[in-house]
Amino acid sequence: MKSKVVITIARQFGSGGREIGEKLAGKLGIPFYDKALIHLAAKESGIDEDLFDFADEKSFHNFWNASPGSAGFYGNRISLFNEMPMNDRLFLIQSNIIRKLAENGSCVIVGRCADYILRDDSHTVSVFIHSTEQDRQERLVHNYGIAEKDAKDAMIKTDKKRAAYYNYYSGGKWGRADNYDLSINSSASGIDGAVDLIITLAELKQGDVK
Amino acid sequence: MKSKVVITIARQFGSGGREIGEKLAGKLGIPFYDKALIHLAAKESGIDEDLFDFADEKSFHNFWNASPGSAGFYGNRISLFNEMPMNDRLFLIQSNIIRKLAENGSCVIVGRCADYILRDDSHTVSVFIHSTEQDRQERLVHNYGIAEKDAKDAMIKTDKKRAAYYNYYSGGKWGRADNYDLSINSSASGIDGAVDLIITLAELKQGDVK
Repeated sequence: MKSKVVITIARQFGSGGREIGEKLAGKLGIPFYDKALIHLAAKESGIDEDLFDFADEKSFHNFWNASPGSAGFYGNRISLFNEMPMNDRLFLIQSNIIRKLAENGSCVIVGRCADYILRDDSHTVSVFIHSTEQDRQERLVHNYGIAEKDAKDAMIKTDKKRAAYYNYYSGGKWGRADNYDLSINSSASGIDGAVDLIITLAELKQGDVK
Repeated sequence: MKSKVVITIARQFGSGGREIGEKLAGKLGIPFYDKALIHLAAKESGIDEDLFDFADEKSFHNFWNASPGSAGFYGNRISLFNEMPMNDRLFLIQSNIIRKLAENGSCVIVGRCADYILRDDSHTVSVFIHSTEQDRQERLVHNYGIAEKDAKDAMIKTDKKRAAYYNYYSGGKWGRADNYDLSINSSASGIDGAVDLIITLAELKQGDVK
């Protein structure tokens, strides 16, 4: 890649999105972050310590203004981070960790509304991966060890959770094509094909072609 | 391309989807069809004449069963094509023309729910093109001659119409990533970049990679 690139990957459960993200990071030689790795990275780098520093209203407002999607839930009167529900606090903390990881250099981030959080960052390439129900169920059974009878249910429930999380914090609609720079049916492209399509799109976006 | 390919393109108004479709058809050396050209092709080939042949219930049911998305609107009791509202008749006629064009050989089809109509045809590669509001408005002003003050309104109204048409006949949601094999932000890819991404995906899909 010509310059820094932050690739965010949202994905249907069982669509191979995580595998695509990992292969993509490997091929580009850049870090890969998912939920667990975002937490670990925050711990290791000490990022998390200053995120809890909301002693004065000014710093809270700086933080708040960086997360416009959540602003409407509380209005302007609440000034203490500690008064927020735990889920919203976690979202704000994760959002700032994601922004700091993206500032630090190229990476691939899976899930966590990263496309929404980094939507105004010109280095971001946002991707959504989906695939046929049949392929997703097969992947859940063979790669994730989910019992065949439970696969469809797991698929539906997990995607509902992902959509609810995304829609709540972004105010948008998870899986709508126009949220993302590129959406791929991995049943059509294959895993390696999707990796190559994403790299091509990232190079095109960096080239600022019209 | 290794074998026949039918590329359907749905698109936000002003996103460059039509231009991408035309360039794609030119590059692959295959016909390009939009609403007007579908009608013309039907007239020239005589396709339209036999589409109005609904004299017996059997032929109606064959036709009907090929359009499951509309079946629920009427149930099983209506057997006469002529009793249907004109819009629904037109949709069924267009659907069959699109199926016949797709049977005849490789082509690019823009709009008309073609992705939905051809969803079970393994030769189909379905694409959705979108782009930023700013780029779309600029294209409407500079390429379509729409006055600057009217561009946003035209964009919103046309997309509402497209979504309503698609959602009514498909029972799905226009612009949802998982309707399409590939969705591209043409502001990120550029027009030529989008053409190349679509050809790459079509080749990957034909290769049946996993």
